[in-house]
Amino acid sequence: MAGNSFGNLLKITTWGESHGPAIGAVIDGCPAGVKVTEKDIQKELDRRRPGQSKLTSPRNEADKVEILSGVFEGRTTGSPISLMVKNKDQKSKDYSKIKSVYRPGHADFTYDAKYGIRDYRGGGRTSARETIGRVAAGAIAKKIIPAIKINAKLLKPTAKLIDKAKKENDSVGGLIECTIKNVPPGLGSPVFDKLDARLAHAMLSIPGTKGFEIGSGFKCVEMKGSEHNDEFQIKNGKVLTKTNHAGGTLGGISNGMDIVFRVAFKPTSSIALKQQTINNKGKKEVIEIKGRHDPCIALRAMPIVESMATLVLADELLIQKTI
Amino acid sequence: MAGNSFGNLLKITTWGESHGPAIGAVIDGCPAGVKVTEKDIQKELDRRRPGQSKLTSPRNEADKVEILSGVFEGRTTGSPISLMVKNKDQKSKDYSKIKSVYRPGHADFTYDAKYGIRDYRGGGRTSARETIGRVAAGAIAKKIIPAIKINAKLLKPTAKLIDKAKKENDSVGGLIECTIKNVPPGLGSPVFDKLDARLAHAMLSIPGTKGFEIGSGFKCVEMKGSEHNDEFQIKNGKVLTKTNHAGGTLGGISNGMDIVFRVAFKPTSSIALKQQTINNKGKKEVIEIKGRHDPCIALRAMPIVESMATLVLADELLIQKTI
Amino acid sequence: MAGNSFGNLLKITTWGESHGPAIGAVIDGCPAGVKVTEKDIQKELDRRRPGQSKLTSPRNEADKVEILSGVFEGRTTGSPISLMVKNKDQKSKDYSKIKSVYRPGHADFTYDAKYGIRDYRGGGRTSARETIGRVAAGAIAKKIIPAIKINAKLLKPTAKLIDKAKKENDSVGGLIECTIKNVPPGLGSPVFDKLDARLAHAMLSIPGTKGFEIGSGFKCVEMKGSEHNDEFQIKNGKVLTKTNHAGGTLGGISNGMDIVFRVAFKPTSSIALKQQTINNKGKKEVIEIKGRHDPCIALRAMPIVESMATLVLADELLIQKTI
Amino acid sequence: MAGNSFGNLLKITTWGESHGPAIGAVIDGCPAGVKVTEKDIQKELDRRRPGQSKLTSPRNEADKVEILSGVFEGRTTGSPISLMVKNKDQKSKDYSKIKSVYRPGHADFTYDAKYGIRDYRGGGRTSARETIGRVAAGAIAKKIIPAIKINAKLLKPTAKLIDKAKKENDSVGGLIECTIKNVPPGLGSPVFDKLDARLAHAMLSIPGTKGFEIGSGFKCVEMKGSEHNDEFQIKNGKVLTKTNHAGGTLGGISNGMDIVFRVAFKPTSSIALKQQTINNKGKKEVIEIKGRHDPCIALRAMPIVESMATLVLADELLIQKTI
Repeated sequence: MAGNSFGNLLKITTWGESHGPAIGAVIDGCPAGVKVTEKDIQKELDRRRPGQSKLTSPRNEADKVEILSGVFEGRTTGSPISLMVKNKDQKSKDYSKIKSVYRPGHADFTYDAKYGIRDYRGGGRTSARETIGRVAAGAIAKKIIPAIKINAKLLKPTAKLIDKAKKENDSVGGLIECTIKNVPPGLGSPVFDKLDARLAHAMLSIPGTKGFEIGSGFKCVEMKGSEHNDEFQIKNGKVLTKTNHAGGTLGGISNGMDIVFRVAFKPTSSIALKQQTINNKGKKEVIEIKGRHDPCIALRAMPIVESMATLVLADELLIQKTI
Repeated sequence: MAGNSFGNLLKITTWGESHGPAIGAVIDGCPAGVKVTEKDIQKELDRRRPGQSKLTSPRNEADKVEILSGVFEGRTTGSPISLMVKNKDQKSKDYSKIKSVYRPGHADFTYDAKYGIRDYRGGGRTSARETIGRVAAGAIAKKIIPAIKINAKLLKPTAKLIDKAKKENDSVGGLIECTIKNVPPGLGSPVFDKLDARLAHAMLSIPGTKGFEIGSGFKCVEMKGSEHNDEFQIKNGKVLTKTNHAGGTLGGISNGMDIVFRVAFKPTSSIALKQQTINNKGKKEVIEIKGRHDPCIALRAMPIVESMATLVLADELLIQKTI
Repeated sequence: MAGNSFGNLLKITTWGESHGPAIGAVIDGCPAGVKVTEKDIQKELDRRRPGQSKLTSPRNEADKVEILSGVFEGRTTGSPISLMVKNKDQKSKDYSKIKSVYRPGHADFTYDAKYGIRDYRGGGRTSARETIGRVAAGAIAKKIIPAIKINAKLLKPTAKLIDKAKKENDSVGGLIECTIKNVPPGLGSPVFDKLDARLAHAMLSIPGTKGFEIGSGFKCVEMKGSEHNDEFQIKNGKVLTKTNHAGGTLGGISNGMDIVFRVAFKPTSSIALKQQTINNKGKKEVIEIKGRHDPCIALRAMPIVESMATLVLADELLIQKTI
Repeated sequence: MAGNSFGNLLKITTWGESHGPAIGAVIDGCPAGVKVTEKDIQKELDRRRPGQSKLTSPRNEADKVEILSGVFEGRTTGSPISLMVKNKDQKSKDYSKIKSVYRPGHADFTYDAKYGIRDYRGGGRTSARETIGRVAAGAIAKKIIPAIKINAKLLKPTAKLIDKAKKENDSVGGLIECTIKNVPPGLGSPVFDKLDARLAHAMLSIPGTKGFEIGSGFKCVEMKGSEHNDEFQIKNGKVLTKTNHAGGTLGGISNGMDIVFRVAFKPTSSIALKQQTINNKGKKEVIEIKGRHDPCIALRAMPIVESMATLVLADELLIQKTI
């Protein structure tokens, strides 16, 4: 209701601010008996944290996950799984100037408008660190659907473009394509919770996303029905379609083909160039956001895209057991 | 949970199949004292029904709505509002052949895969008639947010292209842009229920949609941060941004600018041209879908897009009252 | 959220007022392929309607149920099941005087306080006719758990006491005991959704209830642990307990013993005797509630108690499939 | 869904096992700007922890709460509030024998039946330590409804009876009455989420409870309508009733009178006397549960009863803002 939870049967709630004592997630509804270790989760977290390559920001945090509940002797017990990562290396002073200034592209103004109060340190609740909980939860969800393979890759920009943006103290957008293989036909719910709709929801909930398309996506606008319709056939004893403009779903339910979708990420909002803005009194300000910022947020977003897709698929697999 | 409901505080549940006795919706959580008449709802329903222009399908149904509960002496009482439209003019025989054949682009196969049973008459639950309940509910939600103006327009295709597709017994995709004006800053929820995420969910739940983008959308991929960031300014005493690449939200919360998003609709799947397919025994079949079908589903989708957006906005307005 | 829905995976939403055009329920989440006919539902509805014996009120309504969706060729399809009963024999004039007078024991005042508007005809939304939807839904839920047997019986009062109350233009309370047999161990959820907690919720949601107890119930207050603890044993190869003070659950989860609970019903609030009260302007009034009213609401409540228990059990059975 | 959350708009999720690293709760939906300190929460926790009097168990734990998120400079921010209490003084070895033996009155068997795996150390998830999260959350909810006063008192047993039970290595049940003052008329939801129903749900979710009654409770069974109906009057300009058999609600909605309910607690299941039971192989065992156990669980339950009632009332107050 308040926006911090995702999922129906497999429900994740994330909590925490960038510069609070810790950040974490509670996963409820995970079936009992699933093998999970801190190492499994850590592996995924390590993929999303900064400092992975010279293209990402140098902020170096261990982001070490602790399992606080719900796992006993290496297996889930059916009780809620509480995961926590302590915040370190916070350099609070770096952020003190943004207390009252609204950074372009950030949620400073809108959180003030909504709540009348805001933890301004490092973006507070709107920091990308919130996605730590998502990735940790995704690592667990992955164990529920071991046969399904979810991979996301960066289609754009090139390393060269990212490097150029960095040198110019600027940033650049990005495009990620995610492919999900081995999805059995029948996953997804009717009408409002179509698999596409839930994936779109999941993806647009990732900070910095501006668009989602599945299968033919926006190209379908120019296509004819005779072109777009994927004809059914039997292949290796399976019902498959000859083409995959649908992107793996029909009527919001998986059809056994690969699920293929793309997500657009805007350029990083925090840039070191001068920007015009105002403060919370309405006074004009000029801001330069110094510090450690990725020139392209999409670069580190692959594990987040994969985790959110995993959460949707695992949830729908559980729902399917009740039908 | 089962996919037939949408909304948090303002919750709509739709029910009904194309060729059952009736189709409808229950709206729960509508505040008390809101003026609503059957006429208000009928006006919106009349916008979505077929036979509106020579470009849409000639199926002529009254789609007359009845308010069965929740409204007393012209005002909502806070009790659930039950709306019903009886199904008429069903021509059941037209659909008898599709009992066992999987139509390309339709959910026949996936519903069989999911449920093991399917009301095959006229698409059953997956018929576009299901959206009647959404539009009726949207008409009520509109009364909750009278100041907010939601309009959707068809950007593509041209009338000429639609006419051409029709003559060729084919169909064509479409692109709708929706603009929402007068949204106060602060609407939308954090993290998972960002306004963009909920709108994306709502739009991708509409039959035939393949993509959603907000503000700069997929164009942001090629943009730089210095270009994309919307600088804040004070104008007429209000906090506004100079540009609107964000499309009206920051961090998933409305920023007072127009909300602008686009939705891609695939070409109508039902076409009269010959298509290769299989039946539910895996045997090859050739199918020609005769009958009354719009050559472009986007043509009739504007009121559905608007209704779903209205439901999201009204819901978030109610949520905002609790913060 | 707005209070008109019950259940998690198997969700029922009731709608309708006593004197509106109809009353009904939508059941969402019923598994596909369950055999259901209008006759099955009608049989249960006939048990709850008035005019069943000389002890109940003579209002004679057919209460004929119509299945509007979700059932195809005698089986559920997994789509929402919409059930409707048209209101007849309403004698609206009988109720016109209560427009502004607050009847003792009724919700007239509290609905005014909550909503500022109220459908006063026949109790409107608070009429016992709302339970029609519950009983109809219960008839469907019964099909999901065919092995589990749920029976409720009236422990008090005697027929003689009811007859006496009727003759005195008064009413009398009642006590119902419900026994659920053949519950497999393991049903119910931990912590907040204990089976006992959900049954208590379900029972106290029935109009006119004032108490719920399970197993030893309030008698446990005077008992010692050595007395109250049910010792485990193996009997016919099953884990059973020697006594059943627990009433069939431990830690909120069924233990394989009979679930036994009791529900207290207050005396019918509508009585023909003179009562002091006030109207909605705060002015004193004397009221005599003439008309057809049961002298003991518990008399007709057995099918409602059974239906609500059935809904809880069927829901938990579905949840158990996901663990 | 999985049972570890409670509440609609104000939602609490508890996590943690008795002998895991920590135990805690996430509270989502708390309005922004509410003053909260760790001290406020600690005060309530100190009321529930053991070692408070010679009548309760001597296990001495600091139960020191940490606020991990959602509070900034002493005020809530509208973001989820994560609370954690580290587990100490666990004496894991004490519990090693119960690994395979089903303790009478405990959930060992039912958790095995449900999940097929169980954290047996100190009761694991079913330990009364789970209620720490509830009490901590209740302390925050209290700040949302400062005018409403909630108090619970122990009606039974006497200190003498508790002492006697302790000396006999036995235990005894208890009865708690909770009174809620200053509730404005209009709180509570219709039909399924009646205030009484939600309170019953909340109370029966507390470990060891066997019954709930409101107002006249089970006594209403023997009463007549003319006796039970509370007549309305105006007093000090307010609508009040002359008697309060209703216990503060009509039709599930508060009527402005005190809400009065009672909860029955069974005797502590863990007793040092010999008990017959079986193990998880079905073999007979004799068990004596040595260690630190309260002879009467009701003794420490007052803050838990109050916290659960507070959570319900605060939630309904938020809901009322949307109507």
